[in-house]
Amino acid sequence: MKPSRTSSSPAARKRAPAAAQGTRRRPRQERARHTARALREAFVQVLVERRSYAAVTVREVSLVAGTAIGSFYDYYSSMDDLARVSLHLRSKALLAALRGAGAEHEGAPLATKVQAIVRAVLARHQRTPREWAAHYLLERHFSSLQAYLAMYERFVQAWAHAIETASDWPKGASPATAALGAQTLLYGLVAHACMAAPEGPDMQALERTATRAIIACVHAAQDE
Amino acid sequence: MKPSRTSSSPAARKRAPAAAQGTRRRPRQERARHTARALREAFVQVLVERRSYAAVTVREVSLVAGTAIGSFYDYYSSMDDLARVSLHLRSKALLAALRGAGAEHEGAPLATKVQAIVRAVLARHQRTPREWAAHYLLERHFSSLQAYLAMYERFVQAWAHAIETASDWPKGASPATAALGAQTLLYGLVAHACMAAPEGPDMQALERTATRAIIACVHAAQDE
Repeated sequence: MKPSRTSSSPAARKRAPAAAQGTRRRPRQERARHTARALREAFVQVLVERRSYAAVTVREVSLVAGTAIGSFYDYYSSMDDLARVSLHLRSKALLAALRGAGAEHEGAPLATKVQAIVRAVLARHQRTPREWAAHYLLERHFSSLQAYLAMYERFVQAWAHAIETASDWPKGASPATAALGAQTLLYGLVAHACMAAPEGPDMQALERTATRAIIACVHAAQDE
Repeated sequence: MKPSRTSSSPAARKRAPAAAQGTRRRPRQERARHTARALREAFVQVLVERRSYAAVTVREVSLVAGTAIGSFYDYYSSMDDLARVSLHLRSKALLAALRGAGAEHEGAPLATKVQAIVRAVLARHQRTPREWAAHYLLERHFSSLQAYLAMYERFVQAWAHAIETASDWPKGASPATAALGAQTLLYGLVAHACMAAPEGPDMQALERTATRAIIACVHAAQDE
């Protein structure tokens, strides 16, 4: 069975060659992708219910996902592997939202771009606040320094691109400091709000606060 | 032997009544305080060297502190207990630096107060950057959500007091949003810089960036 492209499980990767020899490759790939996703969704659901990563078991995640316990390891080499993949994909979805909103307002002024980016990132949190609270807490406790710094850097780079392509950003000015400030505020305010109010923070207030703070902070860094 | 007042070890607390009956109480208290502090300093030193909390052992911490392995438990009930106390006291020292700098410039304008606070907090990091890198990483991985939120709230309150007693803060305006933004920037920028450059970040650049960003962010929240 070919594993989902998004799975980083060594166990799953090892099984890939054998699976690729199958004749009905397309349906199998789709089923594998579907199962891998079901396991990730089940993982987050159990994590939210148990309120502790240590309390999440392969048995329960498999049960909630509707798959056999034994096949868990076809997709993820361990619970830690599943946790890592889950954190990574959620962060990547936020990064895509940030980039997408920036690109949609390519030549717009800073204020417009910042507002669009904050709105797009918060929209991702709106429907499932408890999952995001669990995500941020797990990320804090679980992700390695290396993984954290690498992902943070990708967000800062995405901000830098959004800032330097704004119509009112001074030509030739480095966006590095402004981008770092913007990401510090967005990540800090959103993660803190989600962890402090897992039932769902006041998204409108959060959007207003984050937008204004980021715009002010970016403008203040224009000549650094 | 009476334990240090700063130790939260149940084991140490249990021994307190017996120790209080001693006749040479003052010297014993001082020796106990000294040993408790030596264990905390040894803990941080070993943590920095081993680069992983899991690799820190009671044996090595006791050895570095120059105390008998058996007496470790007179001061801390476990390594987790020592880690918690260590994190708590370091955070409290930063909080004191923040409050002290604010109080020193009680009726000054916002810009002056923010600059003094940022400078005081960074001065605490300057001499031992690797210890602070280890502190922030341990805090991230180890501290409970409850402990993190409680300490964060104390910092936000300290900022709120500093902001609303500034000479140019509008009378009657709530400092809550401004204080949250200030703490998000200070904590986020400093913790990230320490973790990204454990040998020591560029403190002058960090001071300039943090000061400007916080002043801008606080001003932007004046009418929220």
